Amino acid sequence: MDRLPPHALPEFETLLRLRRDVRRFRPERLPDDLTAHLLSLTALAPSVGLSQPTRLVLVDDPARREAVRQDFRRRNAEALVRTAPERQAAYARLKLSGLEEAPVQIGVFAAGDPPQGHGLGRRTMPETLDHSAVLAIHTLWLAARAAGVGLGWVSILDPAAVHAALDVPADWRFVAYLCLGWPVEDSDVPELERAGWESRRPAVILRR
Amino acid sequence: MDRLPPHALPEFETLLRLRRDVRRFRPERLPDDLTAHLLSLTALAPSVGLSQPTRLVLVDDPARREAVRQDFRRRNAEALVRTAPERQAAYARLKLSGLEEAPVQIGVFAAGDPPQGHGLGRRTMPETLDHSAVLAIHTLWLAARAAGVGLGWVSILDPAAVHAALDVPADWRFVAYLCLGWPVEDSDVPELERAGWESRRPAVILRR
Repeated sequence: MDRLPPHALPEFETLLRLRRDVRRFRPERLPDDLTAHLLSLTALAPSVGLSQPTRLVLVDDPARREAVRQDFRRRNAEALVRTAPERQAAYARLKLSGLEEAPVQIGVFAAGDPPQGHGLGRRTMPETLDHSAVLAIHTLWLAARAAGVGLGWVSILDPAAVHAALDVPADWRFVAYLCLGWPVEDSDVPELERAGWESRRPAVILRR
Repeated sequence: MDRLPPHALPEFETLLRLRRDVRRFRPERLPDDLTAHLLSLTALAPSVGLSQPTRLVLVDDPARREAVRQDFRRRNAEALVRTAPERQAAYARLKLSGLEEAPVQIGVFAAGDPPQGHGLGRRTMPETLDHSAVLAIHTLWLAARAAGVGLGWVSILDPAAVHAALDVPADWRFVAYLCLGWPVEDSDVPELERAGWESRRPAVILRR
């Protein structure tokens, strides 16, 4: 069994500080074997009852990518209209996805009721299946960053539209659409903070 | 700005391989400053629109801990009855929580509709607030493991019962109950695999 080095925590903290939600990608492709290796690491993510419900859909077809982009444009336009009037100009200036240029794009779904795991741990909280897919996404996110690769999570989408665009089984639930590629820049400050939209704050901790 | 070392990815992979869902804890307390530091790192987790909806509730009160344990026993007994007959004996042998002995216990909730982030990114998928809390949990999980500390996620609970036991604001949604402490053993094999319940499999990847 491998062992962790004594500096494991400070090195992990550096990884956490440098992880970003990336929306600006360089045009170069990612090596296929790097992409495959990063995706394979999601098998090490926690999942409820070891059910491993995460389903990763690599989207290469230009028509399917365009369908996702069109849905993003529609939902983003709706979001702009529903933003507080005094914030609409700032909202319109934000770049909220790398869908135009990201070389690798991935739809992430959770299987409906997978036999793996024999149902353990999810009877009272079936949403733990979706949460397992989120844990796999975060695993991919940090692994990518450790390799110098940026990941952006696109949530301004209609789940039904993405489900249809990617033609996946009816009982899969859409969790996220991910953009992957070499980032234009590195930073230890969230992009929304650099853009003046919001600032990061300390964790909220209560006692009971 | 810090930089990542060239070996960042293999070291992160070691961390992923050694992370476990821990249900067997040594009785020693965790140093308070270590617990506080690990919890503070959740502020570095991704969150939708930088909304940081995660609410961490440190549970010290013996009566509140006992209420959570009682709910776990009840839901676990129900789950046993609903398990396939040929698996019930195996289910009954599993140790599924460290609620009896874990020195640190944390209820994790997502704020209902936090003003932080100004609603960005969550109009079509409000579940991204809960997903942000899941990302904070995974951040804590990996940071704890990097410090040699084990974390166990308890999901065999009725969300309403935990909500009542911890007396939190009505619009917070219960996401997970976590046990934290020094693990009895380290392993690179999931506990459910060592117990013969289920085996880990490769990631499921499709192309479209």
